[in-house]
Amino acid sequence: MTTFELTPVGVGSADTGAACCSPLVTEPMDAARAEQLASSFKALADPTRLRLLSIVAKSEGEEACVCDLIEPVGLSQPTVSHHLKILATAGFLERSKRGTWAYYKLVPGALDRMSQLLADG
Amino acid sequence: MTTFELTPVGVGSADTGAACCSPLVTEPMDAARAEQLASSFKALADPTRLRLLSIVAKSEGEEACVCDLIEPVGLSQPTVSHHLKILATAGFLERSKRGTWAYYKLVPGALDRMSQLLADG
Repeated sequence: MTTFELTPVGVGSADTGAACCSPLVTEPMDAARAEQLASSFKALADPTRLRLLSIVAKSEGEEACVCDLIEPVGLSQPTVSHHLKILATAGFLERSKRGTWAYYKLVPGALDRMSQLLADG
Repeated sequence: MTTFELTPVGVGSADTGAACCSPLVTEPMDAARAEQLASSFKALADPTRLRLLSIVAKSEGEEACVCDLIEPVGLSQPTVSHHLKILATAGFLERSKRGTWAYYKLVPGALDRMSQLLADG
């Protein structure tokens, strides 16, 4: 399993401000910004998390119950929940609880912000 | 240092075909594709590598000598070379040797392909 630091990187939050969307290629990046972005990429640097994200993204309302994510990726519920938590901490998914199960929804714009960052300036 | 698998992922090569650019959000991703993409994100999931990429991208001709990358990131030449090699193996940079020094150039379209992948479908 990938070593992972659970530091909030706020790709989906307002606190990153305008700097959040500066393309990687328009200016040399300072160390603090690079640390923050590397954390976001770490959240995406795992095949299970990429599959979970793509399944959630294709689900109705871009939201899925943990209970519906276990079978498609073929892993245990605790493992799936662990990966979903990393994606939520990184700002790609938001979690809500209804009854017994947790639901995860794609944070609007979070993937797009990462996309813009990599686009040619 | 991040644990890193040096598997070629071919973001900048033709062998990935049309699948290279399918947005993450348009269809559930199979396990093989997810492994490949996770490797690309691993290459980006390090602050030094992000800084090196952004410096190369801003250099004349989107190319820089290793000798000019050491001071901006404040690391030793072997460490800088190690990170550049990871970026080259992942298909983001291409390496050429002239005289004593190695030069690294941004692979045209490689970052854009990752960008398109994350864009909303």
